[in-house]
Amino acid sequence: MLKELKEAVFRANIDLVENGLVVHTWGNASGKDPETGLIVIKPSGVKYDLMTPSDMVVIDMDGKVVEGNRKPSTDTPTHLFLYASYASIGGIVHTHSAFATAWAQAGKNIPALGTTHADHYYGEVPCTRKLTEEEIKKNYELNTGKVIVERLGNTDPMAVPSVLVNCHGPFAWGIDVEEAVYNAVALEEIARIAFYTVLLGQKESVDRVLIEKHYRRKHGKGAYYGQKK
Amino acid sequence: MLKELKEAVFRANIDLVENGLVVHTWGNASGKDPETGLIVIKPSGVKYDLMTPSDMVVIDMDGKVVEGNRKPSTDTPTHLFLYASYASIGGIVHTHSAFATAWAQAGKNIPALGTTHADHYYGEVPCTRKLTEEEIKKNYELNTGKVIVERLGNTDPMAVPSVLVNCHGPFAWGIDVEEAVYNAVALEEIARIAFYTVLLGQKESVDRVLIEKHYRRKHGKGAYYGQKK
Amino acid sequence: MLKELKEAVFRANIDLVENGLVVHTWGNASGKDPETGLIVIKPSGVKYDLMTPSDMVVIDMDGKVVEGNRKPSTDTPTHLFLYASYASIGGIVHTHSAFATAWAQAGKNIPALGTTHADHYYGEVPCTRKLTEEEIKKNYELNTGKVIVERLGNTDPMAVPSVLVNCHGPFAWGIDVEEAVYNAVALEEIARIAFYTVLLGQKESVDRVLIEKHYRRKHGKGAYYGQKK
Amino acid sequence: MLKELKEAVFRANIDLVENGLVVHTWGNASGKDPETGLIVIKPSGVKYDLMTPSDMVVIDMDGKVVEGNRKPSTDTPTHLFLYASYASIGGIVHTHSAFATAWAQAGKNIPALGTTHADHYYGEVPCTRKLTEEEIKKNYELNTGKVIVERLGNTDPMAVPSVLVNCHGPFAWGIDVEEAVYNAVALEEIARIAFYTVLLGQKESVDRVLIEKHYRRKHGKGAYYGQKK
Repeated sequence: MLKELKEAVFRANIDLVENGLVVHTWGNASGKDPETGLIVIKPSGVKYDLMTPSDMVVIDMDGKVVEGNRKPSTDTPTHLFLYASYASIGGIVHTHSAFATAWAQAGKNIPALGTTHADHYYGEVPCTRKLTEEEIKKNYELNTGKVIVERLGNTDPMAVPSVLVNCHGPFAWGIDVEEAVYNAVALEEIARIAFYTVLLGQKESVDRVLIEKHYRRKHGKGAYYGQKK
Repeated sequence: MLKELKEAVFRANIDLVENGLVVHTWGNASGKDPETGLIVIKPSGVKYDLMTPSDMVVIDMDGKVVEGNRKPSTDTPTHLFLYASYASIGGIVHTHSAFATAWAQAGKNIPALGTTHADHYYGEVPCTRKLTEEEIKKNYELNTGKVIVERLGNTDPMAVPSVLVNCHGPFAWGIDVEEAVYNAVALEEIARIAFYTVLLGQKESVDRVLIEKHYRRKHGKGAYYGQKK
Repeated sequence: MLKELKEAVFRANIDLVENGLVVHTWGNASGKDPETGLIVIKPSGVKYDLMTPSDMVVIDMDGKVVEGNRKPSTDTPTHLFLYASYASIGGIVHTHSAFATAWAQAGKNIPALGTTHADHYYGEVPCTRKLTEEEIKKNYELNTGKVIVERLGNTDPMAVPSVLVNCHGPFAWGIDVEEAVYNAVALEEIARIAFYTVLLGQKESVDRVLIEKHYRRKHGKGAYYGQKK
Repeated sequence: MLKELKEAVFRANIDLVENGLVVHTWGNASGKDPETGLIVIKPSGVKYDLMTPSDMVVIDMDGKVVEGNRKPSTDTPTHLFLYASYASIGGIVHTHSAFATAWAQAGKNIPALGTTHADHYYGEVPCTRKLTEEEIKKNYELNTGKVIVERLGNTDPMAVPSVLVNCHGPFAWGIDVEEAVYNAVALEEIARIAFYTVLLGQKESVDRVLIEKHYRRKHGKGAYYGQKK
């Protein structure tokens, strides 16, 4: 079942490696089937060079394995909580990509330091608060999803399609798993440029009007970037 | 029409990716046909792996599409204003290459910190002022061209073939699109070395006499670098 | 003799190069045969592109060459002292990988700045004290092994499978040579992210409870990461 | 004539590009024929992908072209002065590799911050003084050679086989052009690790005894690194 989605989720995991975002098995990707609402997710801790599309695990929204011989990713409860919270999300990836993770480890939001950022994020890339001792000890992965949603608050997850989990690393999402990978790649490059910019002495966000301009060029009603669909 | 120029502009866009200057579709290249004065430019937001030479758009100097089924790059008005301002420019590229963009986001000129720089730029790589709110809201891309020209002032654009747009990123140009790519690659490496140099504690330009020496070795009447043509 | 182990040790040396951890011949790998207790180690100073599995040297625990026409790695006494000190170690690699070496040259432990670190190390990656003049002048390579073991103290080498040798670089190990390479690759990425994090202003370890959580997810009795074995 | 040396010098130039040390044509390599004392050097400003071994230029020690249709590298007088000053040098390369160039632009010697450095350099990698205005204006390339030799003073060029030219970049050499490339690659990696180390807060050289130990392991009478020759 869900053969195409399995292929897409498998391909997404490989793309993360090929884009230099994932070392060893430090990442995972999942996609949601819009018809059945089932989730396809990477198995836990399987080496990428041994993995095939049929290793992808099909689960329902309660995390019950519907198909597959593998254990799903340890981070599955985080993915499920994000899917449950936002109907617009159709794909999620989690990586430990170096620059985005450094911002997460520093516990800092990535400010919108230029138009590269503003083209993709409608404002800063937010970093969550730290989890409490209690939240770490019990239902850790579920609570990781919860602090992401808490941090987003009223923000549209499609306008800010990534959050940094404090002391941990980035989660990125999109309408499907391909877009989630696309956003994870964009995030790492934005985090990298922001790192260099901060070291050159500039830590303040650009003016709101420039964020509006660039974001609106690409997103929403008045968008004029790209081809007509 | 303009088959060769389309190939060259297409190839330039691919070269930007292969040289690590462009992630996703964050860049564009254009070339000018010296006979007709027509411009060939990348289409907006088309994925590079799906793009072919025939996707390149032919426009006139007013931005009217003369040939092609695609919308030209969003940044077309910037390109056109540069072509209109400087007859010597035959090719333009715009990228968000990481180090050059970091300098642009920091709002800083790249000082001529060594001979690598002086071989290619007759002085600092200038950074524009920020656009005003008004300039951002209306005719943004045209105004981007205008601040570049304003920043260059009396400088020969062939002696300083790149400008950083504040909060945005680099534009580079040349006598044709191949040279524009060449200069964009040089700029990114120069921006990278300058970044490391500044972090090692040196922020002052080299003496003017060294800039003169290195620039004149490669450019103008007394040049003695390279082969006779 | 030990044909498979020779292949594995040879492959490990090549993997270090392909993972960008070794320039020229700046590294070495060894593996222990669990049955005979013999060690297979890289020959000293042989160019990697000329090396074959049959160049690997078989030595006993006293460092006597049992088989092979080559001199074993100069760092052999360090490897042997680690094998002698810890029965659990079945493979060792030494590299001068850039970020881990920078931490070693700075003489600093790498603090556990996030979960990427905690997934692999049960606490900081320790840096040894400097060797004394005496220790450098006589039995230098043996003494290098001794300061590693001294620095680990009561720490289980499998819970902290890497140490930075002050002014020198990292040693990493595992149950076999493949795992040692795996840990060396993980260490370099962790050292890289830690470098960026520190430059972003965060130098303090995460809370102990988060280290416990992530380490225990992957290691020991309560582990729930990866597939059942 | 000198077919093999031409191949070696050609290959050296390509190796510099493949090792990421040279962008565009920002580098050059030369080799000396031990029998005739003739020098083979890269032509000036020829694109590397169009260059063949037969483009290499044969010159005598006065810089007179003995064979070849191309102009020799602009930096030829620097190479010749080094060959004339040190009989032991059989190959020279010049690059603008990013980290070594950053140290040169910062006008700083690279201190021996660890054993990676001490394995290759018997002390710091020296940076020359700046050239005077006069030295820049007249016989610039010859004077570049002179400040290198001035900076080395009584140092054996084989014990410190690289110098950084202030505001410019590195020159590296060896007994032949292959060794010169080898040293240029080592220098860039050492410069990179030193850059990270300094940013982590350590700027002081290691103790002399450690430099002695590591240098003597690899070089001179008591060396015990590598295979018997």
